Amino acid sequence: MSKGKVYLVGAGPGDPGLITVKGLEAIRRADVILYDRLIAKELLAHARPDAEMVYVGKEPGRHTCTQEEIVRLILDKARRGKTVVRLHGGDPFLFGRGFEEYRALRREGIPCEVIPGVPSATAVPEHYGIPLVLRGVASSVAIVTGTEDPAKGKRFVNFKKLATAVDTIVILMGAAKLPEIAQELIQGGLDPDTPVAILRAYIEPEIRQVTRLRDCISLKIQPPVVIVVGRTVNVQE
Amino acid sequence: MSKGKVYLVGAGPGDPGLITVKGLEAIRRADVILYDRLIAKELLAHARPDAEMVYVGKEPGRHTCTQEEIVRLILDKARRGKTVVRLHGGDPFLFGRGFEEYRALRREGIPCEVIPGVPSATAVPEHYGIPLVLRGVASSVAIVTGTEDPAKGKRFVNFKKLATAVDTIVILMGAAKLPEIAQELIQGGLDPDTPVAILRAYIEPEIRQVTRLRDCISLKIQPPVVIVVGRTVNVQE
Repeated sequence: MSKGKVYLVGAGPGDPGLITVKGLEAIRRADVILYDRLIAKELLAHARPDAEMVYVGKEPGRHTCTQEEIVRLILDKARRGKTVVRLHGGDPFLFGRGFEEYRALRREGIPCEVIPGVPSATAVPEHYGIPLVLRGVASSVAIVTGTEDPAKGKRFVNFKKLATAVDTIVILMGAAKLPEIAQELIQGGLDPDTPVAILRAYIEPEIRQVTRLRDCISLKIQPPVVIVVGRTVNVQE
Repeated sequence: MSKGKVYLVGAGPGDPGLITVKGLEAIRRADVILYDRLIAKELLAHARPDAEMVYVGKEPGRHTCTQEEIVRLILDKARRGKTVVRLHGGDPFLFGRGFEEYRALRREGIPCEVIPGVPSATAVPEHYGIPLVLRGVASSVAIVTGTEDPAKGKRFVNFKKLATAVDTIVILMGAAKLPEIAQELIQGGLDPDTPVAILRAYIEPEIRQVTRLRDCISLKIQPPVVIVVGRTVNVQE
């Protein structure tokens, strides 16, 4: 049987209107759709009535499906000649596991196309009118993960070094670690009065909390949030 | 007359299929469309036949329209009650001047909605199968401009500090300055053998050149390109 084709699609930050035109077309054509947690139901509703829908979401502390199982599933469906859409929240390669899937497909010689998505890291601050860079204020932004390995709770980002190396820092998956991270940023030389925005958008309930780095040391936040550290947080007025 | 509404829309990295569904809808409804250089003609073709199309592209060394003139134009059209789409390449806030437009509109009390776009910084590397972060290899990425002020040729990014503060560095508008930047990154402690990808995608002619940091010191490149510095450039095999 002929090999299928796999589309690794970024669904964007949660609003069903923020998927790309190409991404939506791929959903409409797919034989099989494997979808993440936090994918809008309105997007899945565009699938063909006879499409096979497979939930492969990972939840903190409770893995419905391991990454290895997801890769095996994608390979299996593609080998049966199916058109497969693997739908990632945000962008497939930016802290998604899309690259690992891409590499496995390439190794097997299975045709694969990446359809990028609007990343939450840029779209969520934008939703609240917060720029990550701004002429004369910020010319560099780092996007980092707050928890590298959810299983081990380890972090590999050097926040002390990062503190003064870029103008704006965006932390994803950082809710639980924010107190530690704030301490390290201050130890690294970042002004304790630096404004910090803790944001959730396109997913209910929305959150927009603006505070100072020093006050993050005692903060308790519920994930998922996008955390922005830097002067651009306060340039709106 | 009632005030109009302005949509600041990210057109994505150049492929007309990579605009968001919401962005395309805004184009279809607009009375006036102000568009940048490098916006796909196929996107503009979705405008209403009677829509007013205004080219406001800036070209290196030749400014067709200053940023102040663009802001004045948007305000003027909106005050006449028009539905205005301001179409930015990539994302409106990520090294576009969209935030300056947003702020001016807010100050005037004109309704304004930002529709984010797929940034070139993430989509172009993805097109070539290059991830910016990867579990176990890279957990942080900085996105920076190579030329902060095209008029003065000044730079404000501290590449020496950045060199060892993040795992991956993406440089936009860096073609002309790459030799200097490479030298500063090496002086900052980055391994001269670090792989570097110089990329152009979704715009003809495409470019995919992979080299080493040390060899960038004597490179001449034509803009526009997205430059990726870091180990993830070589993880495909």
